[in-house]
Amino acid sequence: MLELNPPHRLLLGPGPCNVHYQVLRAMATPLMGHLDPRYIEIMDANMDMLRKVFQTENQITLPISGTGSAGMEAAFYNVLEPGDKAVICHAGFFGGRMMEFASRAGAEIVEVKGEWGQAIDPAQVIETLKQHPDAKLCAMVLVETSTGVQQPLDEVGAYLKGRDTLFLVDAVSALGAIPVRIDEVGIDVCYSCSQKGLAAPSGLAPVTFSVKAMQVVNNRKTKVQSWYLDISLLAKYWTGEKRAYHHTAPISMNYALFEALRIILDEGLQNRFERHQAAVNYLYAELGKRGFKYYAAEGFRAPTLTTVYTPEGLEAEPARIRLLNDFNIEVGSGLGPAAGKIWRIGLMGVNADPQNVARLMAAVDIMNGQ
Amino acid sequence: MLELNPPHRLLLGPGPCNVHYQVLRAMATPLMGHLDPRYIEIMDANMDMLRKVFQTENQITLPISGTGSAGMEAAFYNVLEPGDKAVICHAGFFGGRMMEFASRAGAEIVEVKGEWGQAIDPAQVIETLKQHPDAKLCAMVLVETSTGVQQPLDEVGAYLKGRDTLFLVDAVSALGAIPVRIDEVGIDVCYSCSQKGLAAPSGLAPVTFSVKAMQVVNNRKTKVQSWYLDISLLAKYWTGEKRAYHHTAPISMNYALFEALRIILDEGLQNRFERHQAAVNYLYAELGKRGFKYYAAEGFRAPTLTTVYTPEGLEAEPARIRLLNDFNIEVGSGLGPAAGKIWRIGLMGVNADPQNVARLMAAVDIMNGQ
Repeated sequence: MLELNPPHRLLLGPGPCNVHYQVLRAMATPLMGHLDPRYIEIMDANMDMLRKVFQTENQITLPISGTGSAGMEAAFYNVLEPGDKAVICHAGFFGGRMMEFASRAGAEIVEVKGEWGQAIDPAQVIETLKQHPDAKLCAMVLVETSTGVQQPLDEVGAYLKGRDTLFLVDAVSALGAIPVRIDEVGIDVCYSCSQKGLAAPSGLAPVTFSVKAMQVVNNRKTKVQSWYLDISLLAKYWTGEKRAYHHTAPISMNYALFEALRIILDEGLQNRFERHQAAVNYLYAELGKRGFKYYAAEGFRAPTLTTVYTPEGLEAEPARIRLLNDFNIEVGSGLGPAAGKIWRIGLMGVNADPQNVARLMAAVDIMNGQ
Repeated sequence: MLELNPPHRLLLGPGPCNVHYQVLRAMATPLMGHLDPRYIEIMDANMDMLRKVFQTENQITLPISGTGSAGMEAAFYNVLEPGDKAVICHAGFFGGRMMEFASRAGAEIVEVKGEWGQAIDPAQVIETLKQHPDAKLCAMVLVETSTGVQQPLDEVGAYLKGRDTLFLVDAVSALGAIPVRIDEVGIDVCYSCSQKGLAAPSGLAPVTFSVKAMQVVNNRKTKVQSWYLDISLLAKYWTGEKRAYHHTAPISMNYALFEALRIILDEGLQNRFERHQAAVNYLYAELGKRGFKYYAAEGFRAPTLTTVYTPEGLEAEPARIRLLNDFNIEVGSGLGPAAGKIWRIGLMGVNADPQNVARLMAAVDIMNGQ
């Protein structure tokens, strides 16, 4: 019979990433009930710590009991109603997925289309928003996981402050690794996942909703199409005085998130951001020596995820598979127009360390016959 | 700062329950990528083992990446479209929740209402189905977690075989502890959770869809209102030749499920069912000696969850709280009309053991001043 003995991979793809041994150990902590007062202390602590990592005062800041995609669904479904207009910035796979969510919510989509590998010009977004002042939301991806592009948000955030349109941001490949600055930028709805910058296992999706977003939620004419992800019901369980039973929380995942967040705040956000930048700077230097070429546009490369064409003699897909099988190192393959052409190299959470770059480069050198 | 040091509870409520130390250990296993061929082996094994526990040949048998409530949402949303007719059997909190899901799916609901604490007469259900041969589904709860009633399914299952109406069953407080017999009963759509009879942590929702149910899914006129729970997309990731990326699976939870299912099949389903029955028989005997009175009707008491009025001198709610605080034993409180009046005592998974009954009775005796 098959046994549970997975190989010990170095996970340098777009996620999940490796996690701290203390987080793995937290997963093995004996269970409590989901209404146990001692468990509710963990919930409260997780909300507090998530607010710090999101850099927000938003009361409604909590981990959804599903993966990042569930957080994405929660973000769109809670604020959109059939017939609403949604401005969606689309320059990669996850921008496209945003359109799918808005479409399933019955929204009319105004697409701001960008090129894969490029950031979208904020001026173009603001121009579109001027043409559609009735838009319910404007959605952007902070780090497009398919391209490794980090999208500037500040100008759009500043434009939307004081306007009715909500600013919805995907912080999946960002939270815990680069500043997300919810309040400073003026983001109203944001989601992320547990398994990248936060360095916990996959399975939870932290979300945050601003006061302005919650007003939109509270003024809905129709029920949210997902009961499981209905933020008003979740808010009652997470923040209500009575902690009204909604669903049976994934206890162990919340233990892991607790430990991962504790480690993040112990390191300090600023230190952590600098560590991620330092690790990727080392990666850039080593990739440059070996003839890798960047896929993401210069000036817009996310420290969390580096997308590169492999050099001559190292065909992207066969080399990626060999890297996994012979060296136990995972990097991501390309998606969409970049399928089969690039590597996506993630340096997130505990993995943001030059020593991991050195391991990857050693494998590259060996594959190159050196 | 708060530390992760939860008390070591004996979880004899409706779930989550305690899990085997091997399952906790599995949670701490280093991560793999969600598209890693070695992880896909785990996915295949989990599907195979779930089929055995569900007692079905259904190809589409997999764990949804959310808690039992997500499985419930997946079950209803994948087969219902706006305007469809849904016959819902409602004799407790979770029957009521089924109506909420059907309602959010835009269905016209035909309610078969029963009393809390009683089973619903199958003849009444069949009579309703005869009046509504155009119903898209008939939904029943096998074990109503709010009342501890085990609902007979066979007659309704037999009636629906060969008819267009789908048979949808909630097996949340049942799977892995009592026979669910998907194929034999003729159940088309069924969902459960990981944290009760399966004895894994909460966070996954096993579901199974029959060929007949998948035909209904494939003939939909509208997209499923949840992208995250869209069973056609999930089927491509779980069973497709290309394992098309859908979402980043909760890897550690699937490790835990793997280990929990392996333990179940190692024990043997029949042995496991008998162990659950033996444990609850011991509980019945001990409760009887102490003057507890049953809430669920005789002949319909689920072995997994026993609902009782506490004896004179032992007020349900204060005693439940004292049980938790002074004895580290969790039992469930009542819901709905039974709120504050009863205990719900779960003996599921590893907890289905007379020694746990003995621990609970010792605490009861001490609280009774003996």
